[in-house]
Formats: sequence, structure tokens, C-alpha cells
Amino acid sequence: MSLTVVGSIAFDAIKTPFGERDRALGGSAVHFSLAASFFTEVRPVGPVGDDFGDAEYEVLRRHGVVTDDIEHVEGGRTFFWSGEYEWDLNTANTLDTQLNVFGDFEPKLSDASRNCDLLFLANIQPDLQREVREQCGGVQIAALDSMNFWIESTRDALLRTIAGVDMVLMNDAELRMLTEEPNLVKAAAAVRGMGPRIVIAKRGEYGAALFTEDGFFALPAYPLETVRDPTGAGDSFAGGLMGYLDSQGGNADGGTLRRAMTYGSTLASFWVEEFGCERAERLTRDEIVGRSEQCTHMTAIDSVPAT
Amino acid sequence: MSLTVVGSIAFDAIKTPFGERDRALGGSAVHFSLAASFFTEVRPVGPVGDDFGDAEYEVLRRHGVVTDDIEHVEGGRTFFWSGEYEWDLNTANTLDTQLNVFGDFEPKLSDASRNCDLLFLANIQPDLQREVREQCGGVQIAALDSMNFWIESTRDALLRTIAGVDMVLMNDAELRMLTEEPNLVKAAAAVRGMGPRIVIAKRGEYGAALFTEDGFFALPAYPLETVRDPTGAGDSFAGGLMGYLDSQGGNADGGTLRRAMTYGSTLASFWVEEFGCERAERLTRDEIVGRSEQCTHMTAIDSVPAT
Repeated sequence: MSLTVVGSIAFDAIKTPFGERDRALGGSAVHFSLAASFFTEVRPVGPVGDDFGDAEYEVLRRHGVVTDDIEHVEGGRTFFWSGEYEWDLNTANTLDTQLNVFGDFEPKLSDASRNCDLLFLANIQPDLQREVREQCGGVQIAALDSMNFWIESTRDALLRTIAGVDMVLMNDAELRMLTEEPNLVKAAAAVRGMGPRIVIAKRGEYGAALFTEDGFFALPAYPLETVRDPTGAGDSFAGGLMGYLDSQGGNADGGTLRRAMTYGSTLASFWVEEFGCERAERLTRDEIVGRSEQCTHMTAIDSVPAT
Repeated sequence: MSLTVVGSIAFDAIKTPFGERDRALGGSAVHFSLAASFFTEVRPVGPVGDDFGDAEYEVLRRHGVVTDDIEHVEGGRTFFWSGEYEWDLNTANTLDTQLNVFGDFEPKLSDASRNCDLLFLANIQPDLQREVREQCGGVQIAALDSMNFWIESTRDALLRTIAGVDMVLMNDAELRMLTEEPNLVKAAAAVRGMGPRIVIAKRGEYGAALFTEDGFFALPAYPLETVRDPTGAGDSFAGGLMGYLDSQGGNADGGTLRRAMTYGSTLASFWVEEFGCERAERLTRDEIVGRSEQCTHMTAIDSVPAT
């Protein structure tokens, strides 16, 4: 089995009430790949510039991430994002975005990436997502993320792309915006009506919810006393989730999806404990399994009826 | 076992995107009592005016609610609240509040109410809450709710009242405001440090979370396609929860608290399907048990480790 992700590879300048970083390795494909690497082999697809050097490649390779499809653009600079979070860490104010090499990105997938079993289309322009989806004809599960910017500016393109994937994984507010439906249950049903059989609503500090033909599942977020930087939370959630599904042979039955969400949530909980993807550096498999078992325990209800 | 609640008894004028009512039976003690009545005998304590007639008493009595401690103030008018909800139903804009007989309320409890096993101090002035708590010396579990208004205007009184109860049950935003701590885990720990051994954070459409010495539990809200009026959601949650605990002899071990939260959440989910407390009229015990079993199912994760 193998997993391909297309998305941004970036340097981020991040400021939160708990510290700051001038140039943290980031981007959706990076966060996703590092999280997924704890479960399976993953191939990120995306462009970088001359400023993306051995140190950055090394972070990925240490985790077994296959970097063959990272495209080096001679003379270019890597995508750069700068943002600042408010005291409750719920709102990121973007201070600067420099697309750089990402502005002319045309995804060119190697045979190995194209022949993946699972595909994740991270939050990029919907036409690019669709081109990649079309290159990967044989995937078992194609999933996508998106955001308010694409919903507002490229709505029709996004709807066409959604029609071609199996799973949509977005913030609950964005599912509401996409469907113009304030009720989340109805919003998820509307997205399932567009084609995808699986809809996952990310709910930030409240966890995530799953909508399939089997019904509804919801998972609270792991309770953290220390959250330093929420950057990459959603992408590490997706990486843990898709990585686990890939490790299970692409099985997406009800129980497997619930466990996949638990692993995704666990990865995201570790991610936000430190800046950027720094927590991945010393994260262990035992820590992941231990915390995901805690998640299972902290949601269990004995089903004894009232007397 | 018996359960006493002190709180408002009211008429509400409610407008939501799904309809309106000019004069719905409401108030925290009413919502709480009707929800708790599905599990145990409950005694609401609160004042009413001449406009509170047989029809209103009858709603309570049909559910077995003991109305002996509802104090009729001759020549007075019942508490009145008028509010309007926005399209997403998350924000209530208060249009009018008339305290009426509630303005001079001095809780006078009968022996039967004072000798209750469980006591709920609904969201009223904290000094009144504390007076009632002191009258009920022998309770097994005293719980309270509060709100931003009391946190801002009567903070010291509220802190004194909190020190004398076993359980605090508030909105997560209000727990943060009370403790000036943006992280909910730390906020709950801070409240437990004030005395109460149990803290429950109500999270609206995201459910509720429980903090005790045993750790953390969280329950998502039941997914509803139809929400017509959120008025009374928090009080019916508290009523279902406390009513179930009372039916279990005041036992508040980990498993019992989790089931109590599930029943509370189930009651709240029925409550918001219709205006005011109208859903209680035709709610059955079988419906409650059925939906709470669904809640148990929709949160269960098989604990199979990743391979």
C-alpha cells in the first residue's frame, strides 16, 4: 500500500501567545506526510525553491517520507506564510502570504505517486486537486480538504472536484458555508449527495464528526493543558487518519474509520503541543498508541439502562 | 430519594428562524423539573404571579412534579423573558426581561424540599443560591449553574457559593471567563480547586465534557436535523443528569456520571426539537432510552491497535 498527498510545502513564520518561530518547516503536505509516516509510506507532491535545503529534506527522510516527487524549482523560493494567533488560539490572523514557486505549480506525478492506493488532496486550488485526482485513476480512497477562500472564489471548480472524490474532510464552518446549510447534519448529507460517501467535519478543540451511510460518529479532541501552536492540526489529523487507513489496506468500514479518526485526532493532539511540526521529531509509536487508547477510554459509556 | 431545584419559573416570548411563541411556559426550574421528572420526584422552588394558572400547574403535575414549593405571590406577575435567536441558533438576543415577582424572591423551602437528597441551584443570583444551599444541609450532591452576568457583577458572591457545592455545571465559555483561563482543561482544574469535585462543561452543539479526579470524559451532542428552539437546552440537560443521579441513589462514580451525562444530553436533544418545553408533553421513557442507547453506540471505538 502507498499514500500520495498533494499540497503545499512551506516555511511559516508563526507567533502565538506561547512563543514564535521565524522559519518553521510547514505546509499542508509536510504536516500530512510526517503524521502519516507513523503508519505507512507516504509521497508528498509539491514544489520548493532554492531555500529548501538538505536540513528540510532530512526531516522528511528521517521519517521514511519518500521525497522523489518534491519538485525543486531552480531560482525559485519556497511558499511562505506568516500568521499570528490570538490568546484563545482559535483565530489565526494571516500577516503575509508569498506563493513563490507555488504560484505556477503544475502537479507532475511520478509513476510511483500516480499508482498510489490512497490519495489526499490537501487544501489547494480545486482545479489542481482535480488534475491530480484524474492522474491517479486507480486509487481506493481519494480524499480532499478545502477552505473558505476556495468556496468563495472557485465554487464551481470545487464542486466538480468534490464530485470525483470518496471523502471530504473539512472544518464544520466550511461545510456549512459550502452547502449554505446552518445545520451540520444537513450540511454533511448535502455533501454526501454531491458524490463522496464519507464526510468528516473537523471541529477544532471539540474534535471531529463522521457522516457515512452507517450514520454518525463523533470524537472529542484529546484534552490538552498545553497548546502552543495550532498550525498543522488539521493536516496532521488528516495524515494520521489516511495513514492508518492505508496501513489497513484501504479498508474503510465503520470500525476502521472510527479508529482512523482516533489516530488522526491523536496525531493532531501531539502536533499542537509544540510549534510547527517540531513535536514529530521526538514522537514515538508507543506514545501514539498510548494516547489513542486513552481516547477510547475517555469516550466509553457503559450501556446500563436507567432504572 | 428526592431532588429539589431552585430557579426561575417564567413565561417566555421566543422567536427563532423556525417560528415563534408569545407566552411559552419556561424558566430554568421548569425546564429542569420536567426533564428530571422522567427519572425521579422533583420539587421546584420559585415564585409565580397571578398569571400563572391551573394550565401551567397542570403541565408540571402531569409529569409528577411536586408543586408545593412554588410560591404564589398575590397581585404579582410571573417572570417574563423575551428573546430572538439568529439563523445558526447559537446566539440569543434578549429583547426584554421583566423580573416581576422574581425581583423580591426569598427562597423559603418546605421541610420536604429542604430534606432533599440532591439539590440543583439553577442560574440565579449567587447569594440566593448559597442561602438555599445552607438550608439543605444534608444533601448528597449540590450542583450549581451560573452565567456571565453573575460572573461579572457578583463575582465574589459566586466564588463563595461555588466553594459550597459538589458540582459545577456551566458553559465552557463561562468556565473560561470565571477562571480567566483560556484553556478549558486548566479552567476546569481551577474550578475543582475552589471546592467542587465535579465540573461539567456544557458545549452547546458540541456536547459536554466532564472533569473529575478520575480524569476526563466527553460526549458529543446527539446529531439533530431539526432544531427549532434552543431555549431550555442547558436546564433540560441538567435535569436529565441530576434526575438520573437521584434515581441511582445519589451514586456519582465514574460510570454513573457518564450515563447521567448521556441521559442529560438525550433530554436536551429532545428539548430543542420543539419550542420551550413543548416536546416534554409527548416524550416517552422508551424514546429516551432508545436515543441514549444510540448515543452510546455513536461514540464507541473498538480498541484494536494499529498494525
